[in-house]
Parts: sequence; C-alpha cells; structure tokens
Amino acid sequence: MVIKQKFSIDFQYEIIFTRNIFSPENDTLIRLLQKTPGIPTTKVIVVVDQGLVGVDRGISTTIESYFSNYSQVQMLDLPLVVTGGEESKNDTRELVKVLELIDRAKVDRHAYVIAVGGGSVLDMVGFAAAIAHRGIKHIRIPTTTLSQNDSGVGVKNGINYFGKKNFLGTFAPPYAVVNDFLFLESLDIRDWRAGTAEAVKVALIKDKEFFNWICNHAEQLSQRDLSCMEKLVIRCAELHSEHIGGSNDPFEMGSSRPLDFGHWAAHKLEQLSGFELRHGEAVAIGIALDVCYAVQAGYLKQELADQIIDALQKLGFRLVHPTVFGQDGVSINPELLKGLEEFREHLGGQLTIPMIKEIGSKFDVHEMNPAWIEAAAQSLLQKKEAHAD
Amino acid sequence: MVIKQKFSIDFQYEIIFTRNIFSPENDTLIRLLQKTPGIPTTKVIVVVDQGLVGVDRGISTTIESYFSNYSQVQMLDLPLVVTGGEESKNDTRELVKVLELIDRAKVDRHAYVIAVGGGSVLDMVGFAAAIAHRGIKHIRIPTTTLSQNDSGVGVKNGINYFGKKNFLGTFAPPYAVVNDFLFLESLDIRDWRAGTAEAVKVALIKDKEFFNWICNHAEQLSQRDLSCMEKLVIRCAELHSEHIGGSNDPFEMGSSRPLDFGHWAAHKLEQLSGFELRHGEAVAIGIALDVCYAVQAGYLKQELADQIIDALQKLGFRLVHPTVFGQDGVSINPELLKGLEEFREHLGGQLTIPMIKEIGSKFDVHEMNPAWIEAAAQSLLQKKEAHAD
Repeated sequence: MVIKQKFSIDFQYEIIFTRNIFSPENDTLIRLLQKTPGIPTTKVIVVVDQGLVGVDRGISTTIESYFSNYSQVQMLDLPLVVTGGEESKNDTRELVKVLELIDRAKVDRHAYVIAVGGGSVLDMVGFAAAIAHRGIKHIRIPTTTLSQNDSGVGVKNGINYFGKKNFLGTFAPPYAVVNDFLFLESLDIRDWRAGTAEAVKVALIKDKEFFNWICNHAEQLSQRDLSCMEKLVIRCAELHSEHIGGSNDPFEMGSSRPLDFGHWAAHKLEQLSGFELRHGEAVAIGIALDVCYAVQAGYLKQELADQIIDALQKLGFRLVHPTVFGQDGVSINPELLKGLEEFREHLGGQLTIPMIKEIGSKFDVHEMNPAWIEAAAQSLLQKKEAHAD
Repeated sequence: MVIKQKFSIDFQYEIIFTRNIFSPENDTLIRLLQKTPGIPTTKVIVVVDQGLVGVDRGISTTIESYFSNYSQVQMLDLPLVVTGGEESKNDTRELVKVLELIDRAKVDRHAYVIAVGGGSVLDMVGFAAAIAHRGIKHIRIPTTTLSQNDSGVGVKNGINYFGKKNFLGTFAPPYAVVNDFLFLESLDIRDWRAGTAEAVKVALIKDKEFFNWICNHAEQLSQRDLSCMEKLVIRCAELHSEHIGGSNDPFEMGSSRPLDFGHWAAHKLEQLSGFELRHGEAVAIGIALDVCYAVQAGYLKQELADQIIDALQKLGFRLVHPTVFGQDGVSINPELLKGLEEFREHLGGQLTIPMIKEIGSKFDVHEMNPAWIEAAAQSLLQKKEAHAD
C-alpha cells in the first residue's frame, strides 16, 4: 500500500531598485508592505548591520521616523543592531538575538522581518526568519555591492556552524529585495570593489556582452563611478535572478553549482586568511586561478585569460595572496587543495566544478589536476612579477 | 526598475505501509534508497527514539545488520539513540546531537537521514535534516499511532524554543514516509490509543463515513485490534495527505488551520499538564470541548455531540481533566483561555478556529465566547458525573 503525495509551491518576489529608501518621500517599502490583503496594520521589525551604523549613526532614528509617518505600518520594536560581516554568522549569538526579538515583539507569520545590511547579516537574519514560526516573511535591503548583485537577490540563507561555512541554513525566497544604490556611496573602497568580482564571474559564465562592458568600464567602476556601478548591479541581479528562475533547480537538489565559478578556491582562501580577505576579493583570486587552470588544461586560450586577469586587476583586485602558496612562497598551499573536497562535500555527490572554454558560457569538470592548479598559481605569480618590472 | 522573480518547486513523496521494516526479507527501504540516479552507494545515518530501545533493546543491532546485508547502502555511523517524547524537542540538546552526527559522518545533500520514532523525535530530527547543509533528504519511520496517522505523514518539523511549542521549525516535505504497523504492537496502551484522537478529528472535519466506521469499531480499536488500527492509520494518512496536496496552501501561508479542530485547547492542555497529557489525549479533550462549544453556540445538534463524545470515551479517552478547570474544580481555568491567543499568535493574523455544524465538514469562526467555553467544560463534567452514577 502506497500513498503518493505531490504538490507544487509557487514562489515569487520582486527585486526593486531605488535610492534613499528611508527618506520620507520614498514609499517603496510602504507599497510593498500594503500588499497583504485583509490586514489593515502591517507589523514589522527591522534588523540593522552594525557596519551601517558605523557610517551613519542616525540610521536607527531615520528608520524609526520613516515608519512613524505611516499609520498603516507598525514597527513592533526599535531597530535591532547586530554585528556585521562574517562574525555575525560565525556563532549563534546574533541569530539568537534576532530570534529573541521575534519572540519578544510577538512577530507572527503575517508580520515582516526587514534586514538592512551586508550579505552576512542578510544570511543570518534570513535564517532566523526562515525558522521562526516555520517561516516569517522577510524583506532584504542589501547595502553592499556584493549583496546587491549576488547573495541578496537569491534564495539562500545560513550561518556557519562547527567552523563550517553555511553549515546551517535553508532555501527560503524572500518576500522582496530592495536594492538602494545610495548605500553603496558610504562603502569603504574594498567593499565597494569586492562585489565586482561576482559581476565578472556571472558575466564569464553567462553574458559575453556584459563582460566586454565590464572591461570597458573597469577603471570607472574601480574609481567609484556610482552610475556605472548601478548598471553593473542591475545586470548582475538580472542574470542571477534569471538563473534561479530558469534553472529548474532553484533549491539545488542536484550536484551542479553553476553559479560557483571560481568559488572552490574562494571559500577556502577566505577561511585560510582568517576572513581577512573579503568574499569578493577571494572570488577574484578564485576566478583568476580557475582561468589560469583552464589555460593549463587546454580549455581556454591564453589571450582570453589575459583579458580576464587584466579586467580583474583594473577593477582593483590583487590576484596574488600569501594563502595561495606554501611556506616557500612558490609551491601551492596544500591546505588550499583541501578546498576541492570541502566544496564537493557541501552539496555532496560528484565533484562538480564550473569551467570556461570561452567567455559567456560554462561547462562542468569532475576532477581537477593538482599540478595544473599549482602551475596556474605560478603563472599568476609570474604575471605579478612581470607587472612589477 | 523592478525584476520579477517567479518559479515553482515540485514536491513529491511516497507514504509506504509495511510490516517489519528491518527484517532481512523486507527491502522497502533499500528500494527507496536506490532511487537516486548516478549514485552507486547510497549513504545513510539513522536516528532512533530512546522509547523504542526501551521495548526492543536490540533495535540498533537489528538496523545495523539490516543494512550490512546490502552493499549498495552504506550506514555512515552507528544508529544514534535520542531522548523520546516532548523532551527531545524542549531544548536544543538532542537537535545538536543530530547535527553533530551529520557533521562527523560527513552526511551531505545526497545522503539520507532516517528517523525512527514517535512524532516528537521525527519533528526534531526532521528539523535538523532541514537546516543542515540547507536540507538533507529525510526518511521518516513513525512508530506510534499518532505519528503514523498524523504528523509523520505531513510536511512540518520543529522544536520548542523560548518555552513555546514549535517556535523553531520549517516546512520540509520528507523524501519518504514508511509506516511499519508492527511498531504499534509494542506501544503502551496510552500511546496505542492516543493516535485515534487525530483520526476522530480528521473524520469529523472531512469524512462522515470514516467517522461512522470509527464509532462502529471504537471498542476494537481501544482493545488493541491491530487489523482495525491498520485500517484507521491508512484512512487517516490518506485524508491528511489529500488535505496537504489538495489544499493550495501546504505551507500554511494563510491564517486558516483547517486540520487543527480541537487543537487550540489541546496545545495549552498539554503545556498546563506539564506534558503529562499525551498530545492525542489532549486532542481528545480539545475535540470534546469544541464539540460541546458548538452545541452551546447553536452550531451542532446535541445528539451528534453525544455521539462524538461517546465515541471518544469508547476509544478509551478521559474527557475531564483537572487542567481544564480552575481551583474550584468547576469554573474554567483562566490559563486555558490564554490558549486561544497563543493559537492565533503562532500563525498570526486573525484568530481562526475550525468548528463543525455536522459531521464531515468544517467551517471557521473568528472568535470564541469564554462563557460558552465554560459551559462546554461544565457539560463534560456533568456527563462524567452522570456516567459515574
């Protein structure tokens, strides 16, 4: 005797682009929050990244006074400020703070948890929202280039546990994402640039024209041209979003990680640097390594590799980092190679690494030759030395 | 500028009925585990309810030797025995044990977490599986009447937190559910009977014919007739499953809780009794209270209420419990009435209580009159006294 259960769940959400979301005349959020039929007063709580408070001390007051202008939205408690960056995900302390607020403010499944901050804070708050009362509606307001063009527009959340990146988490589409470009202006230069690495990545595997556009605007992007950065963020968000919606596997049931070009090394480099490297900076190195690997393996022409490396450098990335190399500063760091198995382990199944033969599309390989990885790293070193001459 | 994201996720799983699942000749599990294409060796871990070990000390060995017969399935670690009953959900201790095993045994998203036990253990292990690596495939083997006919076949998991029932959890359809009837034989009489309360509930709101069948077999069911109980479990699982698949709201985004007839009081009574009352026992009282309430409110004829109360009593339930009443033993316990608000709060939005006018279908009410609840409780008290005469 067998009962077969079968159903589908439809998910939809909007990614909205705006400027100055908490200014009194900007009603983007209010319009979003009024979409629940039959609920006259919409209840919200807001969680803010400490990093943001560092550049705008008044942000909590700004948010408070923003909502006080609208009687149809009730903020259940003062904005909660949480630690920013990877630290917010490294243990359960910040997560528990958010859960405590959800409990204390009696946030229910018709209320909204709004998170304002970088990718790590969005991951952590998104996880809290996903597991409290089996899922509370969640609005993400990413404030960094990286989170606006990559993680913030996606469907994943999580925290690190047992020292492992994103060991705990869920796939939980947000209720909405609002990208406010003005937040980018206050980023320090490293955070401003870091997000462009994910743009290079998605362009390399999906959109040759966009890659050429990045090459042509690399110096402007590096030099804080906001209007250029806005174009980059929008195109990335579109590509990322099309990928999730059109992939047939938004919750990653298979072994493939099509968006993770350059990421097997990146995750490990972040960890080996004690998170001194930002995710985007590590991704830039990871892309450079895999591009040089593709040349070693005979997949990619040297000339295209040079063009990619050149673009990454013009965007302001340093592609040689001590964590890539062993104690002699030349051979490959054996710890880095462990990143391959850790990358496989996270999804399980067969090792699957995206690789490129040309710009704008990817294919998968299922093993990587350590000698070629070492040669790839050394070719980056030579490029740097040649550059220094 | 707005990007609209939209996609659907298809979920499907089988609820399989069998006997003696870990006997060498039963290949139900092995057939299930071979369904992953391209993965020659399927990896599993098994978590077992301590309560089960209490009645079958050899169960871990039985499970171990079962899997050792099949080279295509690899058990990554010895079965982990966890505390049974509500205690397994009351803090994060047992949850963390399961997560530690997932980490230690390198369980990935292509491996399976198999849980064998009562509803609480399934809830807790299901939650661990849902959040580790953003969701590991999970097979539930419910071992009590309650879990086989109700929670075990559904899509929810969770643990209690901040002293609140299921404060943390997710909606996560299992990979499969296997109901093994032989586990029911070893249940103590309270656990054997407890699950029949959910059968009465689902029959009252969905299936008059099934309700009549229960009335006609109440004494056999109460007296441990296994073949009767098998029929009851199958019909309940079908009704529960049809409800989830056909409801358009399997993840309960709305305010309605159509399967929760009698449950606003039940949840609170469990808590007020310090979990001395089993969930099913509390549900029986909750149903009796709401049925008497429906008479008070003029929704239901006295004669039908009497028939329902009579069936619950024949099934072996005591419908009068001290937690229902205040210190005088007659007036309603004011703490119980708080259960209404807690019930509303869990989903949020408007209070929505399922109610019946006739047997086999339900409607919703959005408020309950405390005086009528008190009168309902007192009518149960009078019935008991009349019965004692």
